[in-house]
Amino acid sequence: MSTIRHKRNPLQSFLRSFQRGVLTKTRLEAFSDGVFAIVVTLLVLEIHVPHDAHTMSELIDGLFLLFPKILSWIISFFIIIVIWIDHHAIIHHAKSSDYGLLWINAVVLLSVSFIPFLSALLGQYPDSSLAITIFSLSMAILGGLMTFMRMYVERYLTDEGHMVSPKFFVRLLVFGSGAYVLAALLAWVHSYLSYALLLFVPFYFLLPKEEY
Amino acid sequence: MSTIRHKRNPLQSFLRSFQRGVLTKTRLEAFSDGVFAIVVTLLVLEIHVPHDAHTMSELIDGLFLLFPKILSWIISFFIIIVIWIDHHAIIHHAKSSDYGLLWINAVVLLSVSFIPFLSALLGQYPDSSLAITIFSLSMAILGGLMTFMRMYVERYLTDEGHMVSPKFFVRLLVFGSGAYVLAALLAWVHSYLSYALLLFVPFYFLLPKEEY
Amino acid sequence: MSTIRHKRNPLQSFLRSFQRGVLTKTRLEAFSDGVFAIVVTLLVLEIHVPHDAHTMSELIDGLFLLFPKILSWIISFFIIIVIWIDHHAIIHHAKSSDYGLLWINAVVLLSVSFIPFLSALLGQYPDSSLAITIFSLSMAILGGLMTFMRMYVERYLTDEGHMVSPKFFVRLLVFGSGAYVLAALLAWVHSYLSYALLLFVPFYFLLPKEEY
Amino acid sequence: MSTIRHKRNPLQSFLRSFQRGVLTKTRLEAFSDGVFAIVVTLLVLEIHVPHDAHTMSELIDGLFLLFPKILSWIISFFIIIVIWIDHHAIIHHAKSSDYGLLWINAVVLLSVSFIPFLSALLGQYPDSSLAITIFSLSMAILGGLMTFMRMYVERYLTDEGHMVSPKFFVRLLVFGSGAYVLAALLAWVHSYLSYALLLFVPFYFLLPKEEY
Repeated sequence: MSTIRHKRNPLQSFLRSFQRGVLTKTRLEAFSDGVFAIVVTLLVLEIHVPHDAHTMSELIDGLFLLFPKILSWIISFFIIIVIWIDHHAIIHHAKSSDYGLLWINAVVLLSVSFIPFLSALLGQYPDSSLAITIFSLSMAILGGLMTFMRMYVERYLTDEGHMVSPKFFVRLLVFGSGAYVLAALLAWVHSYLSYALLLFVPFYFLLPKEEY
Repeated sequence: MSTIRHKRNPLQSFLRSFQRGVLTKTRLEAFSDGVFAIVVTLLVLEIHVPHDAHTMSELIDGLFLLFPKILSWIISFFIIIVIWIDHHAIIHHAKSSDYGLLWINAVVLLSVSFIPFLSALLGQYPDSSLAITIFSLSMAILGGLMTFMRMYVERYLTDEGHMVSPKFFVRLLVFGSGAYVLAALLAWVHSYLSYALLLFVPFYFLLPKEEY
Repeated sequence: MSTIRHKRNPLQSFLRSFQRGVLTKTRLEAFSDGVFAIVVTLLVLEIHVPHDAHTMSELIDGLFLLFPKILSWIISFFIIIVIWIDHHAIIHHAKSSDYGLLWINAVVLLSVSFIPFLSALLGQYPDSSLAITIFSLSMAILGGLMTFMRMYVERYLTDEGHMVSPKFFVRLLVFGSGAYVLAALLAWVHSYLSYALLLFVPFYFLLPKEEY
Repeated sequence: MSTIRHKRNPLQSFLRSFQRGVLTKTRLEAFSDGVFAIVVTLLVLEIHVPHDAHTMSELIDGLFLLFPKILSWIISFFIIIVIWIDHHAIIHHAKSSDYGLLWINAVVLLSVSFIPFLSALLGQYPDSSLAITIFSLSMAILGGLMTFMRMYVERYLTDEGHMVSPKFFVRLLVFGSGAYVLAALLAWVHSYLSYALLLFVPFYFLLPKEEY
């Protein structure tokens, strides 16, 4: 990389200009935390109380019809919790904040704030392979963004400034995004397989890890 | 417990792996606070202004019809305030945070963020024994979760590491969950009895305590 | 007051038991800030984009019809800002937090989180004397609560522990609540008079004060 | 300016009275951050899942119809991020907070909390020159407010107390507001030109700057 640092073409100069301070880490973190907390709470607004139940059995029927929305809410809730923890770990690792991190973080927050829509789509069309695919691929993209954010921080915002090892990178991508791509594919076999995987992935990530 | 620490079966090893750090207590607290503040504020969105009132008496009638929703909102509001204070006291007691606390906290926040739905259900069907039962039993489960959280913190996240005394545990369960189970049962006798109890419980908890 | 401290009847003992610590001031403040920020932002959700405009003149007509909702939003926005600043000043004055302050604060937040409903009611029925009266009297009650909160803090949570002087108390009540009572009365003369007063009061409070 | 400080007319005295402390900078910042985080997250609530899709092609059609709302959401999202960063930079520059800053900030937050409405208007009527003009001119006004806030802080709340140089002031206005005025004008030529500009402006502002 050292040669690149000395002789850069305009694109590289432009890209390196992003490594300049703009915001304190604390503010970036507080703002992101706010967005995560609001998104996780807004999810439940998609679950509407059945309105036209006149008898108890009608109310029971109406509540049972909410099952897909509740499933979709729980999946989305835990995915957001996992991303929030991951986000925290990455920012914690960074020694400072720069324009590059600001941009990546903005795109991450944009994607995270889109989850209530995706969750509502899944809850509304639980049997649609298309809806499951859109939901899962969006999560795969978000997983990829988080991997990119981690690589950026490791490379430019730590004292060591080392590249993420290819092995670690592949592992991150496979678990963070690959599982969601698989869920998207399984949607065309049977929706239950996708749901099982979508429920499993965040729970897997919330298991204690030996090392960071 | 010391023998268990030396000879553990795989399940115990797995469970003990949760006692590893993952997040700072401060972040856990700030995120949870955000969720509590948002949930407590979203509750009121379920109270809709009457839309088709053309005369003042129609508006008065429309506003009086909101009474069950307002009652349900006040009950839910104070329940959340009580859980928030309890949550704060428990986390305050913990000397650090681990994967176990993270998981329990995630399930607590999931349950808390479900309260706007439960409150809307109660406000929509105030005379339905089923709706009151669902509301009350959910609060009983949430009370049980808070008791579990307290036991976990007392056992694993304090320097003393002592078990909560059975007497204290029973008292927590009886007041935190038992009263709500009773409210659920009373719903099948007369809904007013449940409402009286549901209003009383959070107020009881907000009374000054001699000792923590 | 010293005799009361030595010989108390049961009610006084009960009331004095509220002067015990329960939460740090910082948490109370952070939670309240969260509620204020959310309420102030939710207000705008009541202003709906006109949905059935097919031509530009229909859209212009639709937007002009939003005027009462926008007026009601601006009034509510500045009232909340004023209460927020007042809340901050009061809590800032307190040297600690106790059960009493917790209770008063809970009722204040309950009332503040009700403002989006009141604002929607005013925006929906801008010419209704009843709606203006409900809005204004609610603000008068909230103003009274803030006065009570200030008196409580001055009396029990400052080192001096002095009573608020009757003159200051009357001034607080007159400006904090009296103006709103007047706005409620004026609603039965002409709604424009109420709106003028409702707009004037928060602006008056936001003017720089010689002393706290 | 020194003569003005010695001999002031009543209006000047009144205006100078705003330079008195009222709130800590930290509280102002935390409250504003909360509002920004909530607004940025509420934006997505305007994107509704298509409700009446019975086949996959109907769902695809329904999702494609959301394109204008998604475009409007992305534009609004990045505009808010830019304002948030700008807000942070300005407040960071201030050595303290006074009534004047409080007022300007309140009007800024009022305007920011109106963005979800403006975004919904743009998403609902994406081809309406009027809707684009309202959106763009509102952003121009907000840009002007931010410029005013910066000038106020530079003049009264920094140790240097210098005026913003006319050159810098013009540059701020041209980029912060002028581009949005241009977008409003272009709406009457072709809506695509406005959208291109509306997308470009926030991205331009998020590029690394040589100096603050």
